[in-house]
Amino acid sequence: MNGVLERETAIVTVIGQEGMPENLIGQKKVIAFNGEVKSGDMKLPWLEEQVAALIRGNAANLRFQIEKFFNLEKPEQSVTVMIDPYLPPRQLIILGGGHIAVPVASIALLLDYQVTVVDDRPEYISADRFPGVHRRICCSFHDIEKVLSFGPECSVLIVTRGHKHDLDCLRTLIKYPVAYLGMIGSRRKIEMARQQLIQEGIESEKLARVYMPVGLDIGAETPAEIAVSIAAEMIKVYRGGSANSLKTGGTGKIAHPNDTEMPSSADIEVIQNAVKACREGLPAAVATIVRTAGSTPRKAGAKMLIFREGRIIGTIGGGCGESEVRLEAFNVIDDLKPRVHKISLNADIAASEGMVCGGTMEVFIEPVSTFSGILTGGEE
Amino acid sequence: MNGVLERETAIVTVIGQEGMPENLIGQKKVIAFNGEVKSGDMKLPWLEEQVAALIRGNAANLRFQIEKFFNLEKPEQSVTVMIDPYLPPRQLIILGGGHIAVPVASIALLLDYQVTVVDDRPEYISADRFPGVHRRICCSFHDIEKVLSFGPECSVLIVTRGHKHDLDCLRTLIKYPVAYLGMIGSRRKIEMARQQLIQEGIESEKLARVYMPVGLDIGAETPAEIAVSIAAEMIKVYRGGSANSLKTGGTGKIAHPNDTEMPSSADIEVIQNAVKACREGLPAAVATIVRTAGSTPRKAGAKMLIFREGRIIGTIGGGCGESEVRLEAFNVIDDLKPRVHKISLNADIAASEGMVCGGTMEVFIEPVSTFSGILTGGEE
Repeated sequence: MNGVLERETAIVTVIGQEGMPENLIGQKKVIAFNGEVKSGDMKLPWLEEQVAALIRGNAANLRFQIEKFFNLEKPEQSVTVMIDPYLPPRQLIILGGGHIAVPVASIALLLDYQVTVVDDRPEYISADRFPGVHRRICCSFHDIEKVLSFGPECSVLIVTRGHKHDLDCLRTLIKYPVAYLGMIGSRRKIEMARQQLIQEGIESEKLARVYMPVGLDIGAETPAEIAVSIAAEMIKVYRGGSANSLKTGGTGKIAHPNDTEMPSSADIEVIQNAVKACREGLPAAVATIVRTAGSTPRKAGAKMLIFREGRIIGTIGGGCGESEVRLEAFNVIDDLKPRVHKISLNADIAASEGMVCGGTMEVFIEPVSTFSGILTGGEE
Repeated sequence: MNGVLERETAIVTVIGQEGMPENLIGQKKVIAFNGEVKSGDMKLPWLEEQVAALIRGNAANLRFQIEKFFNLEKPEQSVTVMIDPYLPPRQLIILGGGHIAVPVASIALLLDYQVTVVDDRPEYISADRFPGVHRRICCSFHDIEKVLSFGPECSVLIVTRGHKHDLDCLRTLIKYPVAYLGMIGSRRKIEMARQQLIQEGIESEKLARVYMPVGLDIGAETPAEIAVSIAAEMIKVYRGGSANSLKTGGTGKIAHPNDTEMPSSADIEVIQNAVKACREGLPAAVATIVRTAGSTPRKAGAKMLIFREGRIIGTIGGGCGESEVRLEAFNVIDDLKPRVHKISLNADIAASEGMVCGGTMEVFIEPVSTFSGILTGGEE
């Protein structure tokens, strides 16, 4: 996508303004997490400086957000932008390509991880076994440091075919500050590994950070069940939670508890297709939820692409709320005026649709032509 | 497979004998869970009666097992059989085809569920959205009782697009003794539903059995994360467990804690391909783990098909143990004598392979020609 969708960047879009001499709604700019402008120009140095500073300052924890900025020299001028970050993808490195690795890779791909599988036996990392993974690396487990880097964006799962290789991998990995490190094994094997590494001088605190035996205790027996137990543990470590059934309480976090969503691969697909439609001059509009109140099926950041002929990519939650946005998107495609559209899910029509979510949402709807300002390079 | 692999049947194979006048090793018979003989004949009424009685008596809870039976009239005669049950597949019915249903269906298919998706909007249950599912049913949520049955083999997930439909589904489902019933929703929505149904006279004990809000508390935010949290809860309800990280204790169940495995789709594929190879007269052998001691990567019931030209389907755990079985299988393919082969994973060669599992396993290896006794009907 030539700079538009490098995943360590944010797309910044003007969605509101006050006291400005000209209409900026829909103006876009792509800013890297280090503050560097990748493409686009909003022609307002005071705004661009403030936005870049905000992105740079929050790079580690940037989420979809709506921010209002004031022109400090002319305080009557303000611009509201939506900041849509594309984080570096989470990495999962699976050491060992055996029968557990296969369903773990499938589930990790659903979870939008970039997956790398490593084995020293080429037949165990064939494309047949691991469709859709990012990398399949055949190397000795002694050489993993030479071919891979293990940074804080990495989760690592040790599931080689034998204890000795598992121990070699653990000895290598224990030095790195990875997001999650899990090792499979019986309690006896895990205890033997722990004793061995402590004898070698590795601190027990470091070993205590390793998830071994790996996974949540859900009685998993089959490889696919074990894969779910591992994926659930990885999510829990990343997001937090008690792992109790939500019905019995838990920490109170439930489906979509936050006001914003992280961009999912579906939302990224919306942007990619919007850029494509813009390049091809197709009549289409992007709808992005910018604010919600009360209970709504999706939250701020969720996106949908609506084509004039009726086709839709992505979802902002379905039901009649989505239908209403779709109709308004047709108006936007016709008059090319980006705008915020407010939807109440309390409406009678919503109730009759079985859609009594009780919430309201504001949706920014823009024609895909707004993306022309941030296109760089030629066609793909 | 014309009777061989109807999934409410067990394949019974003779793997050992004492005092018998003729060699029965490898003789097979397919017996339905109700005791009815589906195909095959071991020509030993005393054995067949005892086996059928055992299967009938344990139909609800049949697992892979090795059993020794004595001829009560000639107690010096005994036969050891392996009983390989094919249980009816677990069913998952997803009510609502929205953004949560899609990743739930993907993970449920990995878990060998037969998946049915229901929505009243045909575009939400397209084959594109739900590849590989068993049924996609378009009907009003008021009519689900007319088109589906909800037995104890069913898990049901209520994720329609709106509160009213969810409530209608819950009102219908609460009457049925399904294995698992989950409903998505905010705490507020769930509480409203509970109050409504209690007002309508439904006992609160019944409602307490419903998993609502659905899923384990792992901080799930994206649809795929929510799907993992739901799948993990379904496994936990089915298998048991504390849902704590295994590293912190749990109930002690870890990967492959039992001595037997339930047949996975990979093991079923082995049988299907063995039957096919038998029909086509291909030289091949099936290896089935019949007993294990100590720590082994797979347990009794796990299967692998070995072709003379070297190709393998399925796995009995990989590593050098599997290699040894593969070599012995070539001998079995040549001499056509089914036999039990014992493997020690403590061997030096195992250690050098990093495979210090410390266990032993007995593997029954049989030429695929043994399946000819249970073939029924013609080619597929």
